[in-house]
Amino acid sequence: MARKPENSSCELPSSPGKSPDNRNKHYKFKGDFTWKGVKVQRYKDEGADWSEIARQAIIGASGESAKFHLRYFEIASGGFSSFETHKHEHVVIAVRGRGSAKVGRRTIELNYLDVLYINPDTPHRLSNPNDDPFGVFCIVNAKRDRPKPVKKPV
Amino acid sequence: MARKPENSSCELPSSPGKSPDNRNKHYKFKGDFTWKGVKVQRYKDEGADWSEIARQAIIGASGESAKFHLRYFEIASGGFSSFETHKHEHVVIAVRGRGSAKVGRRTIELNYLDVLYINPDTPHRLSNPNDDPFGVFCIVNAKRDRPKPVKKPV
Repeated sequence: MARKPENSSCELPSSPGKSPDNRNKHYKFKGDFTWKGVKVQRYKDEGADWSEIARQAIIGASGESAKFHLRYFEIASGGFSSFETHKHEHVVIAVRGRGSAKVGRRTIELNYLDVLYINPDTPHRLSNPNDDPFGVFCIVNAKRDRPKPVKKPV
Repeated sequence: MARKPENSSCELPSSPGKSPDNRNKHYKFKGDFTWKGVKVQRYKDEGADWSEIARQAIIGASGESAKFHLRYFEIASGGFSSFETHKHEHVVIAVRGRGSAKVGRRTIELNYLDVLYINPDTPHRLSNPNDDPFGVFCIVNAKRDRPKPVKKPV
């Protein structure tokens, strides 16, 4: 019999026979754009083409079987993500402050609850030219290719 | 050559050779929990085990190639979704008001930006026992099985 799932505040009982890591989970929002049971991490462990971003892997890093991952990225004032391209898609939902997205040749201002779909192979970068933090949910396929940096402006 | 993508306010230019439906898109939040370019629809066309819910299919209903779909469901005061089970997962993010989720035998109160992961085969229902509307993003696999109604309480 599999190890019985722990039942902390963010882990709910699951059906018998389930993988313990694939249990039901409730990540409570703590009011400061962190979630109970979710670590705040570096955006990436590599590269120098980004600045002032933190990542929280909410769904997908703990054995969930969904075909997608949900992350929260927060960009401090003046920060930006890598300018990169890849074959997988992004869905971005702005939830804190406002910021901008470079998507191919276009720059789009993102405000509260705006949803942005970035299709495969379009170079993109998020940035925060404002004084307040800019935070977004970003949903991606669970199986995805590695991003490639884009050197030249498009 | 494929039809050139239209370039309305929610459709951004895409790379050449892309499917016109799989273009980059910016769905602007209109402030009232609707998004520019997204229709408000019935929750389901069938069944009688639900009440007072509207659905907006934001990502996934218009040719996007992501392996997941993003929907927004809004439950009016006193409303509830079907009590159902299926093999696919749900990720629910509360964004308007507050409500509750029955997940297996547990009932969980969902407040602003709480994230709920419902694993495969757990019976579940969202409901709104409060006076104000309760709205959630719900993310699911693009390829998913059909929900089965759950008749008996578990």
